[in-house]
Amino acid sequence: MIVEIVTTGSELLLGQVINTNVAYMSARLNELGFDVVYQTTVGDNHDRMKAVLEHALSRADIVITSGGLGPTQGDITKEVSAEIFGRKLKIHAESKRRMDEHFAQRHVVWTENNLRQVTLPEGAEVFLNYNGIASGVVLENNGKYLINLPGPPSEMKDMFERSLKPFLQRKFGFKYVIVSKVLNTCGIGESLLETKIKDLILAQSNPTLALLIRPEGVIIRITAKASTHSEAEKMIEVVEAQVKARVGEYIYAVDDENMEEVVAKLLKDNCLTVACAESCTGGMLASRLTSISGSSMYIKGSIVTYSNEAKMKFLDVDKEVLDTKGAVSPEVAKQMAEGVRKAVGSDIGVGITGIAGPTGGTDKKPVGLVYIAVAGKDNTVVKENIFSGDRARVRYRSTQQALEMIRQYIKNK
Amino acid sequence: MIVEIVTTGSELLLGQVINTNVAYMSARLNELGFDVVYQTTVGDNHDRMKAVLEHALSRADIVITSGGLGPTQGDITKEVSAEIFGRKLKIHAESKRRMDEHFAQRHVVWTENNLRQVTLPEGAEVFLNYNGIASGVVLENNGKYLINLPGPPSEMKDMFERSLKPFLQRKFGFKYVIVSKVLNTCGIGESLLETKIKDLILAQSNPTLALLIRPEGVIIRITAKASTHSEAEKMIEVVEAQVKARVGEYIYAVDDENMEEVVAKLLKDNCLTVACAESCTGGMLASRLTSISGSSMYIKGSIVTYSNEAKMKFLDVDKEVLDTKGAVSPEVAKQMAEGVRKAVGSDIGVGITGIAGPTGGTDKKPVGLVYIAVAGKDNTVVKENIFSGDRARVRYRSTQQALEMIRQYIKNK
Repeated sequence: MIVEIVTTGSELLLGQVINTNVAYMSARLNELGFDVVYQTTVGDNHDRMKAVLEHALSRADIVITSGGLGPTQGDITKEVSAEIFGRKLKIHAESKRRMDEHFAQRHVVWTENNLRQVTLPEGAEVFLNYNGIASGVVLENNGKYLINLPGPPSEMKDMFERSLKPFLQRKFGFKYVIVSKVLNTCGIGESLLETKIKDLILAQSNPTLALLIRPEGVIIRITAKASTHSEAEKMIEVVEAQVKARVGEYIYAVDDENMEEVVAKLLKDNCLTVACAESCTGGMLASRLTSISGSSMYIKGSIVTYSNEAKMKFLDVDKEVLDTKGAVSPEVAKQMAEGVRKAVGSDIGVGITGIAGPTGGTDKKPVGLVYIAVAGKDNTVVKENIFSGDRARVRYRSTQQALEMIRQYIKNK
Repeated sequence: MIVEIVTTGSELLLGQVINTNVAYMSARLNELGFDVVYQTTVGDNHDRMKAVLEHALSRADIVITSGGLGPTQGDITKEVSAEIFGRKLKIHAESKRRMDEHFAQRHVVWTENNLRQVTLPEGAEVFLNYNGIASGVVLENNGKYLINLPGPPSEMKDMFERSLKPFLQRKFGFKYVIVSKVLNTCGIGESLLETKIKDLILAQSNPTLALLIRPEGVIIRITAKASTHSEAEKMIEVVEAQVKARVGEYIYAVDDENMEEVVAKLLKDNCLTVACAESCTGGMLASRLTSISGSSMYIKGSIVTYSNEAKMKFLDVDKEVLDTKGAVSPEVAKQMAEGVRKAVGSDIGVGITGIAGPTGGTDKKPVGLVYIAVAGKDNTVVKENIFSGDRARVRYRSTQQALEMIRQYIKNK
């Protein structure tokens, strides 16, 4: 069954509100095995809305709207829908009774325009609203369905779960489910990653494999369609193993787990502590490491050393090395990591020094050049990076790479 | 001019990603006087995308896409667009030169599929990408425009502002303009703020006044519609003065200027330096203060002291005070601020100690309790705060309040 979601409302067209409803409905419908193939947004204009809904009904089997069921003159979704299906509007007794009750409980008298919310197309299946007043409706004709849900997210979600989902199950059964698993990578670009698994991507139709760029790195999404959840999971497992055999070293987490959580867990599990000496990232690495509840178990302290004096005073970086190699150099990154490890008394020390930009770059040391060092008891690893993007991006990617290096350090210990 | 925005990508149809691009583009286009009348999302399927774009071109004057310009096989927006306009694809020399440079700087060799990103429709106006590789293009035929922008938000936004906006202005001029000005407040809740300016909100239709809650505080948005930018600005000025007369003390910045920028400017203008001693915020305050380019002028160093030992070692906090008052106490916040001021040798020292949660709270010291101290040459101010929300929110609001206290300290000096 092909589904089109039509969200209505000028606040969406004006960009004043981010459309979270369409993401929620799409995710849920896909999980239930429906293909959401189009998403359209239109304003509260009769002719345009009618044209959009008619066009949607021509290319989809099920059209689900959200918005425009309220009491104002601008709320016209139900009226336009009824017109398309040639239905009259009539007060719906049960919805009206519940509205009376709603207002009586609040010692408020309803106004004339509230009646609009319980005036529904004749012959429609009605979804009662347990979080508000406007009822939802289902219109059906020749095997095409037009379903109106309210716009406020709490009302829409409750009606989706309470009424729409059982309705869809009753009408269509759930022939299959769609399950996705996300593999999060760090330290490899989209192109190289695709090159390494291109044949797998091309060979797959179910599960499918897709690469997506996120600020924290490229993610690999495996999506399987099957009759049961566990069957889909098994299909994903096979592909996941193939992917991991090729690029497993770059995968640091699955699904919603982020790098901070992965590193925090590794530190806790191995009873290790970490301390950071940050220059260009200015505390962001420590901030990310302490974003996890219980972080006091693995981090005692960290130092932001922006100036050369601070690097010397707190981290014991050599003046001569600063003078001859410059603050942004592998040598200084190494001394920062080793210095903070000693100063704080941690198992692992991390040093970051670089040029976050937009100013401060030179031909030899361009904006985006960042040296990151991870020092342990026996050795120190230093990595040169050139990150693209603006200051915020360079700083964020520096901390992401530093976390990845901590992860690699612990795994290879 | 009627505009339709078409966003592409299966991650949108699957509901895995919330479509922030469409909100950004819609808001900006409306501000420039264009009517965004339709928003459509379609997947990376040739036939469906072609039908959607052709339909969009039949009902809108300008169709702007976002997404599908990347290097992978699934990125087909440019190909489909070229097909509709009957154009051949050809490597674009300037885009290719920039891509070569991009990879050379990173000592990486581009792969064959990267070439797709610089292979553009013949005769198209090209928007270079300053945040990535994929160029944007403008196709024109019979007064209809099809414009392809990249999908990653940072690339899309930069290209929108740098290239699309000047292009639209050159082609169409702007008939009327909608201008908004935002007044950012800190330290006052929405209800109290509304009470103080409710009569102004109700009295206005142009400009309009609206209150919106943001993580960093409540914002007041004044929006005026006029035939010229300067006329709109004059209308806003009148209302702004009325608002400021009522609640000016809470307003720390206008428009996109954030608290970091305001405080950075104050520090620079007054030739003052600052150092932070952070416990529960774990480096976030220092990270925010160093998010501004040129921050080395006012920040030399900062210290994250999570453990009591680190507080004693680096900040000279009294063991007795820690033992009797506890780490989360006004006394410790004061000693942290004074200690870091001395250790780093800065003009201002900031100390933050609190319980970010979700664990660690007690009846007397609940989650959200945060003491913030600002120490100068002659005196130290300490403030007790109880912030609501989850760990991330408590930490963020703590840093926002700390920045506000630095601002107040400098203003009252």
